[in-house]
Amino acid sequence: KQGYQNAPESFLHVGRHKTVGLVFLNPSLRTRVSSQRAANNLGMYSIVINMSGDSWGLEFDDNVVMNGTNAEHIKEAAAALGSYCDILAVRSFSDFKNYNDDKSQRVLNAFIQYSGVPVVNLESPLAHPLQALTDIMTIEETIKISRKPKIVLSWAPHCRALPQAVANSFSSFALGYDMDLTITHPPGFELDPEFTGGAKITHDQKKAFEDADVVYAKNWASIKDYGRVGGLKEYSDWTICADKMKLTNSAKFMHCLPVRRNLVVTDEVIESESSVVIQQAANRVWVAQAIFKEILEGECNARKN
Amino acid sequence: KQGYQNAPESFLHVGRHKTVGLVFLNPSLRTRVSSQRAANNLGMYSIVINMSGDSWGLEFDDNVVMNGTNAEHIKEAAAALGSYCDILAVRSFSDFKNYNDDKSQRVLNAFIQYSGVPVVNLESPLAHPLQALTDIMTIEETIKISRKPKIVLSWAPHCRALPQAVANSFSSFALGYDMDLTITHPPGFELDPEFTGGAKITHDQKKAFEDADVVYAKNWASIKDYGRVGGLKEYSDWTICADKMKLTNSAKFMHCLPVRRNLVVTDEVIESESSVVIQQAANRVWVAQAIFKEILEGECNARKN
Amino acid sequence: KQGYQNAPESFLHVGRHKTVGLVFLNPSLRTRVSSQRAANNLGMYSIVINMSGDSWGLEFDDNVVMNGTNAEHIKEAAAALGSYCDILAVRSFSDFKNYNDDKSQRVLNAFIQYSGVPVVNLESPLAHPLQALTDIMTIEETIKISRKPKIVLSWAPHCRALPQAVANSFSSFALGYDMDLTITHPPGFELDPEFTGGAKITHDQKKAFEDADVVYAKNWASIKDYGRVGGLKEYSDWTICADKMKLTNSAKFMHCLPVRRNLVVTDEVIESESSVVIQQAANRVWVAQAIFKEILEGECNARKN
Repeated sequence: KQGYQNAPESFLHVGRHKTVGLVFLNPSLRTRVSSQRAANNLGMYSIVINMSGDSWGLEFDDNVVMNGTNAEHIKEAAAALGSYCDILAVRSFSDFKNYNDDKSQRVLNAFIQYSGVPVVNLESPLAHPLQALTDIMTIEETIKISRKPKIVLSWAPHCRALPQAVANSFSSFALGYDMDLTITHPPGFELDPEFTGGAKITHDQKKAFEDADVVYAKNWASIKDYGRVGGLKEYSDWTICADKMKLTNSAKFMHCLPVRRNLVVTDEVIESESSVVIQQAANRVWVAQAIFKEILEGECNARKN
Repeated sequence: KQGYQNAPESFLHVGRHKTVGLVFLNPSLRTRVSSQRAANNLGMYSIVINMSGDSWGLEFDDNVVMNGTNAEHIKEAAAALGSYCDILAVRSFSDFKNYNDDKSQRVLNAFIQYSGVPVVNLESPLAHPLQALTDIMTIEETIKISRKPKIVLSWAPHCRALPQAVANSFSSFALGYDMDLTITHPPGFELDPEFTGGAKITHDQKKAFEDADVVYAKNWASIKDYGRVGGLKEYSDWTICADKMKLTNSAKFMHCLPVRRNLVVTDEVIESESSVVIQQAANRVWVAQAIFKEILEGECNARKN
Repeated sequence: KQGYQNAPESFLHVGRHKTVGLVFLNPSLRTRVSSQRAANNLGMYSIVINMSGDSWGLEFDDNVVMNGTNAEHIKEAAAALGSYCDILAVRSFSDFKNYNDDKSQRVLNAFIQYSGVPVVNLESPLAHPLQALTDIMTIEETIKISRKPKIVLSWAPHCRALPQAVANSFSSFALGYDMDLTITHPPGFELDPEFTGGAKITHDQKKAFEDADVVYAKNWASIKDYGRVGGLKEYSDWTICADKMKLTNSAKFMHCLPVRRNLVVTDEVIESESSVVIQQAANRVWVAQAIFKEILEGECNARKN
């Protein structure tokens, strides 16, 4: 946690006279507030830009006659924001019209290409790296065992189409940190092997939970049948409940939030002693602060990540 | 006013490295801007969270399968915000579906119960304490007489259902400060005696105004016939006008704002020398600053108020 | 640029303990973010107020019974905001119902009349002075010739009714700085001579472009046939394209942004070496900073502008 809580003055010089623009094309609670707090901890000024509500509709296509509802092209918007801010951080979710379109991450990539400043991903269609770093940090804080912890990423039901971003980033970071990762989901909800290669994958949720040290619950929509929702009607037996948690090695329960109670996880599990979801949320500040600090200190060029 | 204007440096250490989260479930002008200014006067960082626009729909019921429009339960949202902020301040108005539901103040109480940090009420269904403190402060600044001032809280017409919060808090604070309080309203618009016990109550507005030192105008909806509006058609003779003000002891005219002109009060009265509505609004800064300061200094635990 | 970039500490005392309220009745990207950055560069606190979304509907008419949708009169809103802020900055666009109504600039003027503090215009129906100052600054940075530069303000097609504000302010500032200004537009799109008196005016766009050092493109709606849009169907030959730019003296291409690509200007021109639109956007910070600084230092009373 960088010693901030013990020595809050230590990093105020890092962001002095610097500004981060926090650009949201979708809703946010934890990401926005933790990023603002993190910037302030570094003495950095932050400006929130809710593109949909406060500003102009953005055009992302090339070679288009802008005769419709979008008043500004991303090329100008990104470059202008880059001229006002030393760092930009951008959230833009999947549209769920076409997987290849979402996979192209055109909003995030347009900011990277046209802003001229380091860009932090606050969740794109494919990735949510600040969340994954927070998750790894929380696992390291809570699991104190000598062997490799067994981590289970479990799909769970939901009533709306959710992106694969959290599952992708959690998988690739857990594998990168050399954890023993098992992913369990119903047939038809396969993730992209680009992010999950090296993980054990099974359709048997109960089997997966055996001896688990961590159960990370998350819904994502189907890629194969793109955007298909896996709801309660068909998949009610995938909700994380106390009986399933008993199969584990007293596993910690994790979720990135917001979470739909009694759909993804029962009240009983999320309110149990094993649940570390609020600790995960709280750690978002320290991760955002660490990333901003690295960028500001020039140890890292966010555009190359 | 704490000497801030004379010595603006005096309190900048109080809020150093502290953050207040200003959470709005309803519109705000004075409350938000005065709270942000007050925080800044204390050297405290403030983050505004407009729950309806920027974030996720909140679920407040227990034991519910969250299969609908609300993406996050207040239990997680409040705890996450509490992990980012040292103080939370919350505005959530009445729904006007059921008085007992509104009286339970479930939004405010959920933040108190689940956030883990001191919570300031920025107007709940039952109370608007920062407004009432501002009102008392304004009376003390403007009424310089040796006897107890006669304060009249007068109901006035309106076209929409408004909460009892301001009337409740003004009544209980005026009574708490041992003022001579008369409340006047039409039959059917009785306030809850929990807040008004000890006040004189009359349906005769003109009689009430006699010898008044302060006329505080405010509409509120009926409790008995819950949410019933008292509009101009039936109650046009309740609008505060110059003729009625002539019955008083050159009374100051007060209102918490926003005010509907020529419905609650005539242009003539609100623009007269007697009107102190802008002074009331201005004093919101000093009251918010005083409350934040007390919380930060640990002299007061907002959750116990 | 006031030396800020070289000596960022130099002006932090200017705005110490001061607050600017940035009031928006319409969308903004550059204006809001550059104003926030400018305030922060001066050590001044800024509070953004999006009137339409976060606060109460405003009434602007006098002598009205406020029995409709607007909950607050501008007289109280402006005075309350003036009590919280040392400077207010206000954006309010044209309604396009009636030219004389728009010309009265009632929103801006109400803030000037009732707030009691200096008011900066962030674009009103008639004027956008911060943009015009930025434009002049950008011309001075990029055009290095000994004779008076030939500046062409060219109307261009658009699909929506846009105000005359930018064209008015650019014209009057260019003329005020003694530049050689030619305005070209189709018949029916005449600007108000109050702002353009002294400029050469022609309906022959190509003729206007000859020997130009700067081409400033901008759409505005008709005043004569108020609010009439000049779209692509009738006016496609007014779009700024590379062939027309070849008629100039290697002119710089300017636009205030947001710009509709391939309607106002082709991709080729806006992405060319001659385009200085991002430099214009970037300069907004320095202009806002200079204006705020002058107001704070008492060298200028924004209300008299």
